[in-house]
Amino acid sequence: MTKYVYLFKEGNATMKNLLGGKGANLAEMTSLGMPVPQGFTVTTEACNDYYKRGKKIAPEIIEQVFTALAVIEKEAGKAFGDAGNPFLVSVRSGSRASMPGMMDTILNLGLTNESVKGLAKLTGNPRFAYDSYRRFIQMFADVVMEVDKENFEHLLEDMKEKKNITADTDLTSDDLIELVGQFLVKYEELKGEPFPQDPREQLIGAITAVFRSWDNPRANTYRRLNHIPYEWGTAVNVQGMVFGNMGEDSGTGVAFSRNPSDGTNELYGEYLFNAQGEDVVAGIRTPKPIAELKKDNLALYEEFDALSKKLEAHYRDMQDMEFTIEKGKLYMLQTRNGKRTAQAALKIAIDLVSEGLLTEKEAILKVEPGQLDALLHPQFDKQALKKARVIATGLNASPGAATGRIAFTAERAKEMKAADKQPVVLVRQETSPEDIEGMVVASGILTSRGGMTSHAAVVARGMGTCCVAGAGSVRVMEAKKQFEVNGEVFKEGDWISLDGSTGVIYGERIPTVDATVSGDFAVLMGWADKYRAMDVRTNADNERDATTAYEFGAQGIGLCRTEHMFFEADRIPAVREMIVAKTLKEREKALAKLLPMQREDFIKLYKAMKGFPVTIRYLDPPLHEFLPTATADIEALAKEMELSYEALKATIDDLHETNPMLGHRGVRLTITYPEIAKMQTRAVIEAAIAVTKDGMKVVPEIMIPLVGEVRELKYIKDIVVETADTIIKEAGVDLNYLVGTMIEVPRAALLADEVAVEAEFFSFGTNDLTQMTFGFSRDDAGKFLADYYEKKIFPNDPFAHVDIKGVGKLMDMAVKLGKQTRPDLKLGICGEHGGDPMSVEFCHNVGLSYVSCSPFRVPIARLAAAHANIKNPR
Amino acid sequence: MTKYVYLFKEGNATMKNLLGGKGANLAEMTSLGMPVPQGFTVTTEACNDYYKRGKKIAPEIIEQVFTALAVIEKEAGKAFGDAGNPFLVSVRSGSRASMPGMMDTILNLGLTNESVKGLAKLTGNPRFAYDSYRRFIQMFADVVMEVDKENFEHLLEDMKEKKNITADTDLTSDDLIELVGQFLVKYEELKGEPFPQDPREQLIGAITAVFRSWDNPRANTYRRLNHIPYEWGTAVNVQGMVFGNMGEDSGTGVAFSRNPSDGTNELYGEYLFNAQGEDVVAGIRTPKPIAELKKDNLALYEEFDALSKKLEAHYRDMQDMEFTIEKGKLYMLQTRNGKRTAQAALKIAIDLVSEGLLTEKEAILKVEPGQLDALLHPQFDKQALKKARVIATGLNASPGAATGRIAFTAERAKEMKAADKQPVVLVRQETSPEDIEGMVVASGILTSRGGMTSHAAVVARGMGTCCVAGAGSVRVMEAKKQFEVNGEVFKEGDWISLDGSTGVIYGERIPTVDATVSGDFAVLMGWADKYRAMDVRTNADNERDATTAYEFGAQGIGLCRTEHMFFEADRIPAVREMIVAKTLKEREKALAKLLPMQREDFIKLYKAMKGFPVTIRYLDPPLHEFLPTATADIEALAKEMELSYEALKATIDDLHETNPMLGHRGVRLTITYPEIAKMQTRAVIEAAIAVTKDGMKVVPEIMIPLVGEVRELKYIKDIVVETADTIIKEAGVDLNYLVGTMIEVPRAALLADEVAVEAEFFSFGTNDLTQMTFGFSRDDAGKFLADYYEKKIFPNDPFAHVDIKGVGKLMDMAVKLGKQTRPDLKLGICGEHGGDPMSVEFCHNVGLSYVSCSPFRVPIARLAAAHANIKNPR
Repeated sequence: MTKYVYLFKEGNATMKNLLGGKGANLAEMTSLGMPVPQGFTVTTEACNDYYKRGKKIAPEIIEQVFTALAVIEKEAGKAFGDAGNPFLVSVRSGSRASMPGMMDTILNLGLTNESVKGLAKLTGNPRFAYDSYRRFIQMFADVVMEVDKENFEHLLEDMKEKKNITADTDLTSDDLIELVGQFLVKYEELKGEPFPQDPREQLIGAITAVFRSWDNPRANTYRRLNHIPYEWGTAVNVQGMVFGNMGEDSGTGVAFSRNPSDGTNELYGEYLFNAQGEDVVAGIRTPKPIAELKKDNLALYEEFDALSKKLEAHYRDMQDMEFTIEKGKLYMLQTRNGKRTAQAALKIAIDLVSEGLLTEKEAILKVEPGQLDALLHPQFDKQALKKARVIATGLNASPGAATGRIAFTAERAKEMKAADKQPVVLVRQETSPEDIEGMVVASGILTSRGGMTSHAAVVARGMGTCCVAGAGSVRVMEAKKQFEVNGEVFKEGDWISLDGSTGVIYGERIPTVDATVSGDFAVLMGWADKYRAMDVRTNADNERDATTAYEFGAQGIGLCRTEHMFFEADRIPAVREMIVAKTLKEREKALAKLLPMQREDFIKLYKAMKGFPVTIRYLDPPLHEFLPTATADIEALAKEMELSYEALKATIDDLHETNPMLGHRGVRLTITYPEIAKMQTRAVIEAAIAVTKDGMKVVPEIMIPLVGEVRELKYIKDIVVETADTIIKEAGVDLNYLVGTMIEVPRAALLADEVAVEAEFFSFGTNDLTQMTFGFSRDDAGKFLADYYEKKIFPNDPFAHVDIKGVGKLMDMAVKLGKQTRPDLKLGICGEHGGDPMSVEFCHNVGLSYVSCSPFRVPIARLAAAHANIKNPR
Repeated sequence: MTKYVYLFKEGNATMKNLLGGKGANLAEMTSLGMPVPQGFTVTTEACNDYYKRGKKIAPEIIEQVFTALAVIEKEAGKAFGDAGNPFLVSVRSGSRASMPGMMDTILNLGLTNESVKGLAKLTGNPRFAYDSYRRFIQMFADVVMEVDKENFEHLLEDMKEKKNITADTDLTSDDLIELVGQFLVKYEELKGEPFPQDPREQLIGAITAVFRSWDNPRANTYRRLNHIPYEWGTAVNVQGMVFGNMGEDSGTGVAFSRNPSDGTNELYGEYLFNAQGEDVVAGIRTPKPIAELKKDNLALYEEFDALSKKLEAHYRDMQDMEFTIEKGKLYMLQTRNGKRTAQAALKIAIDLVSEGLLTEKEAILKVEPGQLDALLHPQFDKQALKKARVIATGLNASPGAATGRIAFTAERAKEMKAADKQPVVLVRQETSPEDIEGMVVASGILTSRGGMTSHAAVVARGMGTCCVAGAGSVRVMEAKKQFEVNGEVFKEGDWISLDGSTGVIYGERIPTVDATVSGDFAVLMGWADKYRAMDVRTNADNERDATTAYEFGAQGIGLCRTEHMFFEADRIPAVREMIVAKTLKEREKALAKLLPMQREDFIKLYKAMKGFPVTIRYLDPPLHEFLPTATADIEALAKEMELSYEALKATIDDLHETNPMLGHRGVRLTITYPEIAKMQTRAVIEAAIAVTKDGMKVVPEIMIPLVGEVRELKYIKDIVVETADTIIKEAGVDLNYLVGTMIEVPRAALLADEVAVEAEFFSFGTNDLTQMTFGFSRDDAGKFLADYYEKKIFPNDPFAHVDIKGVGKLMDMAVKLGKQTRPDLKLGICGEHGGDPMSVEFCHNVGLSYVSCSPFRVPIARLAAAHANIKNPR
């Protein structure tokens, strides 16, 4: 028979999967001989069994619960429902991973019309007993029976009104006895049955409610955001109640073994005498800092401090603990590894190494890579932020803080910035590729439309620029050079501030402080570099991003999207000229104009990377992206280009695609127009020669996108090699270069052994690969992904984290097939997944040589790569 | 050392890959002791070597050529360039597969200023000798030296003008000698060097030219259309010349061992005395039917007839032969299996079995499945066609012949057809789903825009309706109810005729004759059924198609696209009501209107299939396809639906997708709106119950489209099963049904083991699977596929023939993984590939249970399945 119920003394910390974190740690503290109110844990397997049976608890589990209950009743010398010496319990959820506040808790369970009398007698405090009963009825009705608690709050309010008092604490015990009577009547009225007077019925109801709360919407959302599988289930902890509200010799508190805000090695927390946990949380009374306990009760302080140190040493990590003092006796109710800020995480990890508690590798694993994000972007000055005025909220599209003057067009943003160097915030309904130059100069970007994968969001994340997107309440009126929000008008030049990490928009200037990458940060990153196996490169299309990434530790460029250079104001006319060209000769003429600009770009990138490899992807997007769609814009451009409107419109119509994602782009473009590949090769190689002549080493890696068939790659590679070798020979320099491909079309992954015959490196383009493997586009998936999460079809967004089962299987095949042909094949990833820690771990496991990500994700990827190699060494 | 040159006596018919078809058969005839002018073959490997070396013939090959030449010179007792007894040769291409007229040929090679005299003396016919030389100079200049032959034609014309004659044959030998002189001067003038007087130089030039012609544009196009790999290369046959133009005891001819038009067992062909092959082809003189040779020269006739019979028995197939009579002696110049009409192919195959020459299996392999197409559609009356007037040509989008009165709207087509039952041709700029009812009643469809995969083309092929698409010269003016073509106007009600097999449009009524599926056709199909391993089903969405397919031998429906039913005039209002519904209740109300109609449809389909399985695919296309896009249409619909324009427009805007192919469709729709799946299940099951109660057996197969993750399928399957089982239980009948999925998203194929846990069958949707595996959409690929063919990146269209290497690899994986989970998994294909013989063969090899194709492809698929199983028995 499966054991579904464990007494605390039967478990230990290693049984987290079965007992949940809270249950395992209660068991561990018990085995360490610490003062823990005893109880038992109903396992996560019981939760899964509950769902498997269509939300029913099996009779054998109920039986095991009652058996365990009998043991702890006996040990406590109390009995459930006993009018003389009643046994009361708390019922709390506890899953494998901490999910604070997401699931349900019931306190004081076991109170009935009889046992409340016992509690009153035992404590000599009928007020306390009836107040507990009142709270329990309300909590039980709410959590177990799903009755709106407002029903009871009204009765409480009426009573206070009748008594003409404002604070609950002013109610007398008689008032509370009367209120309990009203609650019981109300309960029966609402549920059609009396409030259960059998504590065992209460207990099973409560356990059921906790299991049920595993599946509530907020728990599901929390799990998805934190990658906690639904299959894990929650355990339920049933623990004897202790009361911190039994008088001035009782109390309750929470404390961390170190400061979770900055990492200082000091006991940190707060406590209240004569209070229960919820009083601390409710904020009616102000708790005292834990340090004051030293003055109030030195012995207790020292006892707790000793326990805290013991637990920290035992778990080898900073602990977050809950305790209760009942009539002078200290009880530990919970311990767990404490949540901490990024700054604290770094300091604690490094201190624990200095203190000899952790090895460097272990310390690295204590810092979540994603946490570093907070350290890499500017932040608001904390004092100034406190009094700042919030005007609206949008999506937290790209982290960091920004303050600046409003500009409504990219052009104005550039002009304003150039005029006085003061920061600018670009505010648009939505951005498009033509806004790129304004986005580059802006300190922050605000859009009123578009989601987390809108143009503004994607580009801003890439540049590390703060962005709040899709702020629906902001009405942008570009023509009037103003926006309106809740009736208030903001005009060009007015100051606003954005918090890209939270999505909050402030209606004023707030000073910001810059990120630091020295001190503890530098120490930890140094360790990470020591233990990782993969290189980390960056996706960068310009000198600015390349320099930022280099400073953040990037070991090369993994993706330079040359088309981003094409959108710049000085190039787009030549690009458009190339597109409308009717003959090869006209096209070549336009390309010749682009050549010197591209060459100059590449020289800058090579120099910024100081000898690290630079991967340059050839033109990728469909050509229509470079042309306008609105009639007025077409008219204007036609005039500018000295074409008839009809002629330009005809070109644009010709280029129209039903599914641009599946259209004439990537290598398909250069197969149609090989002269583009020739020009780009010339720029790449001539730039490399120029840099080489300056004495700098450079190995350009030429990357052909969207290859699905080796003959596509061969066709372009032949052109690249012929062009490059001729130029190199003429220049008489010694220059190496590689030609490789993106693996982003499923067919290329399936036939990677063939592709590797020509490709000298692979770089996984997991954005497109995900789109094509799943058969949905990132732009369009928004319509149904919410349904997919809600209906538990997808655990999370495959565009945020590599889908290891499907896309990952293709990647694994491609790696194996590719290496079969070319054992020294260089393997990388340059999709947005390259900066996602979960995906980085997969990339390590699948055997990639490097990951490439946006500049501001570089440190995160370095740390994630170290995590991966420590967990699964190469 | 590789042997690159084979004397005819060194080879045989099995060496086709090395010697090409012509070379192998010349060798075989030699070994059979037949009268073949001797020579040698330069192998296909030499051709590949030529391209590998950058279009150069290796010295060792040249050496081998001259060695072989020496042998045949010696045997012939003649010498190359000999002024007394010159040896002349023909140089002809000959690849593994016949590519008639695609590559180059050179005759009379060996003629020089010296040897021409020898020829004149030897034949006693200087006119003949100099005429041959003249022709050779022109041919050599054209084919080998790439000089435009117009240069020489002009000289010839000038000469005729000067002599005041019109026919070449009126030129005297002196005229010709003068002309040869002019030709030689012109040659030197154009090439800057004299005409080569060394026959060996001529020979190597000619061989090079033939190799080069393997890569000419028409050869490349021919190969692509006929699936001949570029890698095969061509052989070159160098053969001693014999002359059919040496007088009235000489002649030349071509003949088939049976009638290639109807298959009658009779010698069939034509010949000319005193002529060379080109005279027969040029059509200046009218050749005589071969039967007349009996009267002209019985001995020769009998000799040839005996050779013909011997060759046919030897090759066990109808032969296509070329012969020459030189001074009374018969020479065989070529034999090969003859091309024949579909009707002849059937008769010959069946006769050869009766005659004991072939087994049934061998006979089946003699009929190309694709050929049957011609027998399955109505054809024009041949006599009437001869004098019909062509007005334009478009794409041969869907085969067959149609004649009817012009209708410019679907509505008018219906009305006109209903009024008097006379045939109608629907003429549109392009069709859309709303035209479906007009397309159903039309005998033919003509569009002025759109390609082979346009809506009109795809739907017409599915229905087996003749369609000519994209006829650009036809200017359709719907509003004026007329079209204009080359200045001529056709109005509603005027008769036109379409040939969907050729794309030709006729400006008048032409009687048609119906297809027959009896007689030889029935016999051969009976054999095919006996030897095939796969079932053949049909894609049919309505009773008409289902009935046609049943008559063509379909063993069930493999794909019923329920959305096609949704477009019909009586349903679309309810569909639109469902789409604009704002609440579940409103949506259910609209669905309730659709239920009885869907149920009725399914009853008809079940009945048409008489107990065979019927696979019903649930709603697949994105919802915006059911709504208009033009402002005027939206206004009209809003009025009809009693909505504001703004409200309807907002709904349409909401449904807009950037990449509809990768959007909210397939299972994604029913996950968002499970009530659609419920309604469809109700219709499927209630219809099955109704039919069952009528005493007919039926097993509906419910197919969920676009699944990429097993949880998608499970979510919908749970709804289907719950709904179905409830209805079945209530009805108290015994009814089985299956729930399966399409495999059309790469991820589903990659994770087919998981998908098969829920899926009771797989049906490969190779249209989408191809799109997603390659990463391009069928609609958009038109922009670059032509470049891909031209640059030899793709051998052919992956939407026409399954891409075995890439898409096929996924299919193979899916089959293996699926069977791993569910060994009895039913496996089918329902993409357009299901009717393509090459793809059917692959489906057999990969282990599918059935293929499903459009009704008119069913016999083709039956025969293709037999081919596959005979070649590679299960």
